[in-house]
Amino acid sequence: MALNDLVAVKRNETGIALVLETLRHEFGERLQTGRSVREQHGHTTTYLPNQMPDGVVFPENTQEVQKVVRACAAHHVPLIAFGTGTSLEGQVNAPGGGISLDMSRMNRILAVNAKDLDCRVEPGVLREELNRDLRDTGLFFPIDPGANASLGGMAATRASGTNAVRYGTMREAVLSLTAVMADGEVVKTGARAKKSAAGYDLTRLLIGSEGTLGVITELTLRLQGIPQAISGGICPFPSLGAASRAVIATIQMGIPVARIELVNALQMKAINLHSRLDYPESPCLFLEFHGSDASVAEQAELFGMIAEEEGGGPFLWTTVAEERSRLWKARHDAYWASYILRPGAKGLSTDVCVPISRLAQCVAETEADIAESGLVAPIVGHAGDGNFHTLVLMDPEDPAEIARVEAFVSRLNMRAIAMDGTCTGEHGVGQGKAAFLPHELGHGVDVMRAIKQALDPNNIFNPGKTITGGRIAADQD
Amino acid sequence: MALNDLVAVKRNETGIALVLETLRHEFGERLQTGRSVREQHGHTTTYLPNQMPDGVVFPENTQEVQKVVRACAAHHVPLIAFGTGTSLEGQVNAPGGGISLDMSRMNRILAVNAKDLDCRVEPGVLREELNRDLRDTGLFFPIDPGANASLGGMAATRASGTNAVRYGTMREAVLSLTAVMADGEVVKTGARAKKSAAGYDLTRLLIGSEGTLGVITELTLRLQGIPQAISGGICPFPSLGAASRAVIATIQMGIPVARIELVNALQMKAINLHSRLDYPESPCLFLEFHGSDASVAEQAELFGMIAEEEGGGPFLWTTVAEERSRLWKARHDAYWASYILRPGAKGLSTDVCVPISRLAQCVAETEADIAESGLVAPIVGHAGDGNFHTLVLMDPEDPAEIARVEAFVSRLNMRAIAMDGTCTGEHGVGQGKAAFLPHELGHGVDVMRAIKQALDPNNIFNPGKTITGGRIAADQD
Repeated sequence: MALNDLVAVKRNETGIALVLETLRHEFGERLQTGRSVREQHGHTTTYLPNQMPDGVVFPENTQEVQKVVRACAAHHVPLIAFGTGTSLEGQVNAPGGGISLDMSRMNRILAVNAKDLDCRVEPGVLREELNRDLRDTGLFFPIDPGANASLGGMAATRASGTNAVRYGTMREAVLSLTAVMADGEVVKTGARAKKSAAGYDLTRLLIGSEGTLGVITELTLRLQGIPQAISGGICPFPSLGAASRAVIATIQMGIPVARIELVNALQMKAINLHSRLDYPESPCLFLEFHGSDASVAEQAELFGMIAEEEGGGPFLWTTVAEERSRLWKARHDAYWASYILRPGAKGLSTDVCVPISRLAQCVAETEADIAESGLVAPIVGHAGDGNFHTLVLMDPEDPAEIARVEAFVSRLNMRAIAMDGTCTGEHGVGQGKAAFLPHELGHGVDVMRAIKQALDPNNIFNPGKTITGGRIAADQD
Repeated sequence: MALNDLVAVKRNETGIALVLETLRHEFGERLQTGRSVREQHGHTTTYLPNQMPDGVVFPENTQEVQKVVRACAAHHVPLIAFGTGTSLEGQVNAPGGGISLDMSRMNRILAVNAKDLDCRVEPGVLREELNRDLRDTGLFFPIDPGANASLGGMAATRASGTNAVRYGTMREAVLSLTAVMADGEVVKTGARAKKSAAGYDLTRLLIGSEGTLGVITELTLRLQGIPQAISGGICPFPSLGAASRAVIATIQMGIPVARIELVNALQMKAINLHSRLDYPESPCLFLEFHGSDASVAEQAELFGMIAEEEGGGPFLWTTVAEERSRLWKARHDAYWASYILRPGAKGLSTDVCVPISRLAQCVAETEADIAESGLVAPIVGHAGDGNFHTLVLMDPEDPAEIARVEAFVSRLNMRAIAMDGTCTGEHGVGQGKAAFLPHELGHGVDVMRAIKQALDPNNIFNPGKTITGGRIAADQD
């Protein structure tokens, strides 16, 4: 896999022209074809090249989404749903051009059912917006991937983030979806009941399908009660191994930790430089505990003892909201802070996830590999889930460096797969990881391809991604 | 829908004869064709008629499952995977004959990874067996559907049960599956990592597919730590409404109840008669709390206050294991206890699940409907999930009664669907509920059918069930 060598999707010039004409007629000013808007709707987040769509449509309801889908289906033109463009694997790129479907105008919170701890939203609602709206209900939506992403995009990419260790991922947080399928029909994947055994799990099939099977137009989400109390803190460790062992002990003891984030020494240095802080520049864990006043103190104290046994500490923790926010701001800024280590560089974020018993070994081997490869790549991880990221800072114009990065990424992904883990815990496959899926899932990729073929026979939904991306689809196109 | 009017699956006599010959050659005595064995492998649990397979094979490993699948695929002969036969919707019936694949010899626990809180098992392992094996590790497998079912069958039917309110269902409890698909190929649906964003969620697609998409030959399961302390008890209420309101308050307050079971007055009477107890014959809640010594006492006390506010109580609870077991034995015996209300009757178990805010209304309307219909049908429910069962005790030889039962079941399912609920919270679709799926999921059923067609084009896996059962498939056959 060459990093910039993405699968080609043949442009259907005639079809694109016809669809643009239809959409101009239907949507007027809500079809945009200016270069800057189109560039914004291609990939802009990482080293991957920007691949613009030919037009951007802003639908306002499900019926309008159906119209766009039907127009694209009639002429076999690619259709790429767009939330906020914060995905990291090129999920919104348009390798064969086509139409970007910007969901930002479908941003209504349709219902909050406080008694049922659920809500119904349009896909363009942003997660921070939803949480602002929920504040008076005593409820919150727990999935936090860092970016203020749209809920539709989060479902499409099976997003998770820092507190998945306690509250799960979008897989658990979505009760049901409404989606427009490739034939233009609307499907509701489930009821609002908490459990269901009513046929195949179409909800989970769409979650993580990255816009390749349907366009999500409505979501029913599970909410959580805002905890009575929160404690949080940061704890340094003498080594990554010691920090990892503390994570394993915490999970095994059943401490219901809400967040447990691993940050390596280089990443701590970047955070200090970026935010002008003076945290210890050694491996650290950031933690948060949710519960009653008594239980969040008990949990923090228990963790403090675990840390001490591994030679870590002091574990500084607080229940004061402002102090916690300051601490956690540093962790949340980690992604952007990293760039201070190599100004002007482009970042490539890896995303392996391994069984937690293998985390220490996987992180240690990866840190050694980074050093041997002569790369700059700080590490942060959702350690409670065995998921960690390296942000490889690279010059995408230097072929020799690109070759070293490619080799490193390949070794890292294969290392995780060999440990019975995955090449992607939460960022998804997009354009960047398709080549690794067959190593991880073997014949499973053929099964996925059969499903894609059955539900989107003309491959109009997000072509060149997930299972039709990378080397895999190269044979087909 | 007439209760006994199941979808016909045309028998393929030539194919069946050829497959039996092949299997006799391959499996010798491990192919059984005696009538009693075949009868045991058709449906035996409820009012549904028994539909025998033509032969029962006992494979011992995945390769042998592949051989059977390939033989059946070559001759378009139905193949029905069989766990323990405890499903309630005719999932193991053989309406077109064919081969029952009895997984009981694939019953090895392959690995227990205590550090990762997971294990790897063959599909024939029974859940009680697994929990006995785990005892020394401090871990347990939480899904408890009542029957001592096989883990493969539980995954295939997306089973849940009494403690799903805290620990989730098979949807959450399975990390990954190995399955033999209709082309005879083996698919591993995921890694052992806790999270994954690696393509379509094939794990969740197979969970609940009732053997219509593939045969599960291995499962990786998530385990839970055995709680330090458990408290449990039983609490009477003046009315179903009061009991339901107490459930809603408990869930909304975020009390992490492990079990909260609703039992109506008639069911309490049956339990008393069956187990010679003298519980109050009014609506009751059975509860269980898991946590530290302090927290299980706190939770029980909090619930006691909620109950009191609804006019319920006294709430008798204990942390003594023997006393709890006695209490919960009464709840677990409810299914069989019911038959004492009408000896010789056949039972039909309904399984609706509604948003919890609608539970009180749905149960009250259903109780009134039972009275008006002149039926005997006690009610038990996994109330914390909004899921409840009526066990309609009927004489399956009395056409007039059958008509009344049919009409009642239809009203109940449509009532739940109208409340944004489902006709099946946990028992699945099988042969009994296919007619209600289109009402609940509309075009979603067509999507399911497209997936089935793509993955099992000759419909060899469990024909006449789930989306190829009931009235739906009648048009097709």
